[in-house]
Amino acid sequence: MDYEMILKEIKPNTNEKEKVESLAKSMIDFINYTSEKENIPTKALLVGSVAKNTWLSGRADIDIFLHFPLDTSIEDLKKHGLKLGYACIKKMKGTPEERYASHPYVTGHIEGYSVDFVPCYSIENSQELKSAVDRTILHTHYIQSNLRSEQINQVLLLKKFMEGVETYGSEFKVGGFAGYLCELLIIEYGDFKSVLEAASSQWKKGFVIDLENHGTGNNFSEPLVVIDPVDPNRNVAAALNIQKMSEFMAASRNYLQEPKKEYFFNIPRTITKDTILKRFHERGTRPIIISFKAPDIPADAIYPQLKKTETSLKTKMEQNGFKVLRSGYWTNEDTKAFIIIEFDVWNLPHCETHLGPRIWDANHQKKFLEKYASAWLDGNQWVVEIERKHNNVPDFINYLLKKENIHHLKIGKHLKEEILNQYEMKDIDDFLSENNSQKILEFFHQYLNPGKHLRR
Amino acid sequence: MDYEMILKEIKPNTNEKEKVESLAKSMIDFINYTSEKENIPTKALLVGSVAKNTWLSGRADIDIFLHFPLDTSIEDLKKHGLKLGYACIKKMKGTPEERYASHPYVTGHIEGYSVDFVPCYSIENSQELKSAVDRTILHTHYIQSNLRSEQINQVLLLKKFMEGVETYGSEFKVGGFAGYLCELLIIEYGDFKSVLEAASSQWKKGFVIDLENHGTGNNFSEPLVVIDPVDPNRNVAAALNIQKMSEFMAASRNYLQEPKKEYFFNIPRTITKDTILKRFHERGTRPIIISFKAPDIPADAIYPQLKKTETSLKTKMEQNGFKVLRSGYWTNEDTKAFIIIEFDVWNLPHCETHLGPRIWDANHQKKFLEKYASAWLDGNQWVVEIERKHNNVPDFINYLLKKENIHHLKIGKHLKEEILNQYEMKDIDDFLSENNSQKILEFFHQYLNPGKHLRR
Repeated sequence: MDYEMILKEIKPNTNEKEKVESLAKSMIDFINYTSEKENIPTKALLVGSVAKNTWLSGRADIDIFLHFPLDTSIEDLKKHGLKLGYACIKKMKGTPEERYASHPYVTGHIEGYSVDFVPCYSIENSQELKSAVDRTILHTHYIQSNLRSEQINQVLLLKKFMEGVETYGSEFKVGGFAGYLCELLIIEYGDFKSVLEAASSQWKKGFVIDLENHGTGNNFSEPLVVIDPVDPNRNVAAALNIQKMSEFMAASRNYLQEPKKEYFFNIPRTITKDTILKRFHERGTRPIIISFKAPDIPADAIYPQLKKTETSLKTKMEQNGFKVLRSGYWTNEDTKAFIIIEFDVWNLPHCETHLGPRIWDANHQKKFLEKYASAWLDGNQWVVEIERKHNNVPDFINYLLKKENIHHLKIGKHLKEEILNQYEMKDIDDFLSENNSQKILEFFHQYLNPGKHLRR
Repeated sequence: MDYEMILKEIKPNTNEKEKVESLAKSMIDFINYTSEKENIPTKALLVGSVAKNTWLSGRADIDIFLHFPLDTSIEDLKKHGLKLGYACIKKMKGTPEERYASHPYVTGHIEGYSVDFVPCYSIENSQELKSAVDRTILHTHYIQSNLRSEQINQVLLLKKFMEGVETYGSEFKVGGFAGYLCELLIIEYGDFKSVLEAASSQWKKGFVIDLENHGTGNNFSEPLVVIDPVDPNRNVAAALNIQKMSEFMAASRNYLQEPKKEYFFNIPRTITKDTILKRFHERGTRPIIISFKAPDIPADAIYPQLKKTETSLKTKMEQNGFKVLRSGYWTNEDTKAFIIIEFDVWNLPHCETHLGPRIWDANHQKKFLEKYASAWLDGNQWVVEIERKHNNVPDFINYLLKKENIHHLKIGKHLKEEILNQYEMKDIDDFLSENNSQKILEFFHQYLNPGKHLRR
């Protein structure tokens, strides 16, 4: 494999690097000048992948942390931090957008870059931690001190490979590997290929990596445990789910078996509505799509609610005898969201059997027979046929999504509001005739080809 | 409850009794005279319910046992025994019909009665037992010696009640209580009502009754264990299945709660084809009837084969995703037999998911992926969608009943021959339009009202 060729495509060139670094420097200088002038006890610091030199070309997210002394009140930190951020964005002629992590921060869209201004406390070690963001400065220092310069290329290859096989990113939507996690894996295993080899043949559920020998691996129950070198009580891989861990292992095996450049890049796709519909028709299932407005909450809060709702709906449908082949969900993280449930069985008879007590249980038998005069015995168990209340899928979904019945489902509260307010239920044909953006078609393509990204 | 009134209907009057007894006596005299004349070492003996005085009016089955000394060869016993039986039937101007139990016997249809001539060995206790029929003489003696004369009416009530609630008869078709078992229950509990009270409140799965305290109760695993007073190694209730034991318990509870004369008599029924069809249509299920010629074997051999075939078909259908609500079988014990399977789910999509190895299992993964290139991961498990071979019920049944596929089913060999030779598969409408005898309608009525006989 010609890694140099790949690096040529993914590593920022001198020009791009200088531009990003000079932009970052001018913003840091502005904040430090302003804070000094206005007597605000803070210093700006470049952190994250730009500071660590581990960013991919075209993908520079500039992270500027404004660190305050530990005795600053949280109100002052928030007030001054955000004020300085807004001021800097204004000065740079950017557009501000306020966001929330464990405490507020502001993002500026400046000269085509996304720049985060995050107020935090200036800590020297994890015992002083006041909020999760405080760790970031320690992380940046750790990588700067422990990642050898020749390993930077290895980090870039690993990140890009993970992007190609769709396991990169610790946000809930992906549930994959964070950038910091990639850097730690390179420090642990030495280079890109060794990470893939370890994942292929060594990793098991609950595998522990403990760079600084903190010895706290047994405290965690996630699929992969990577003890944070700067905080023994944190698993850097906490957001990595079993799905993405498994997918990375599978993709690593596939790649090592037959390395191809294509693993580092997205699969080019030409997707049409007709291809999608043809595939669904061939399957002979009944795919039902329930769409509604996405609630106005951060993306990382929408996805868990969608997942919970999908799971709960699926469970209820199956409990009622409507067998589900597969299901999924999608949102543009803004206005639209939908859940697809693909049914094996979507019509049922008007009657169903209901099991009663055993014959040995004279008391329960009495009550049961008072209620069900037509009961009979199947062996030693009382059985009765009762009318099935819901014998087709659309009726049952409409029933469940009524205000008085929705408590049967486990739905996140924001989603519940939106669904109760308005939802649409459609077959795949009807849905796609009105919703055929490339993003939506891509979702269905992925839904119909769920293993394609693991192999080239 | 006016038991006298019921007894008036069910107990043979003097006239009927004298007729049966004199007929039996003349046959026994003939056999004893002939055997003495021809120097055959046997004596005829009246056994069974007529000998015990426990037969129901209109239901006298005369059992004549021809007992031979223990040193008689089985060939001689069979030859002489059957010869004397045939001779007696001829003398009485009856029609013979040869039957098989553990060894051959002959039944004569004589003056409207069914008379069994059974050759057996003359034994004094169960250690001398050479075949199952040898016990009958011991049973008759035991009841004659231990059933008090006033208890005879109680036996009649119990037998008639069991008939009414359809739990009487130890043949496989019923799987209920034998006449001898009824007599032992009366000896154990004293009278009719006490048997019902014990069944209602004391009986459990594996309940043991051991009149002669043989102490062998733990050797048996049947639902009810009644140690044969004349043979510690035999459970008189061995043929009673959990279904009929449970039904008798339920009917006893119902009767004791509200005693009614109607429990002692069959429920009068008016059944029409249209009522049956209406009920099936209301249910919205899909009932499929597979009919074929009944094999030419004794009834007690047909039923187990039908049951086995029904169970095996049902299991296979469910394994393939075709959910079964209920099923049943019927035969006229002569020419016709059928199995009904009533489906909840009878159409399925063209695809199904197939589970593969876990991601941790690199070797199995390799083989699985070589076979299924489109596989994907669901959590840590490989999954693939494959084409479903059989996606509707009639096609799958036709597939299974082909000569090259029938080995997938567990079918008794005589039934297999008949089915492979010819079978018809029909919906209930088509089936009933061609098969609407009262017996068949009664079967479907019972199928649709499976608890009705337990309650009046």
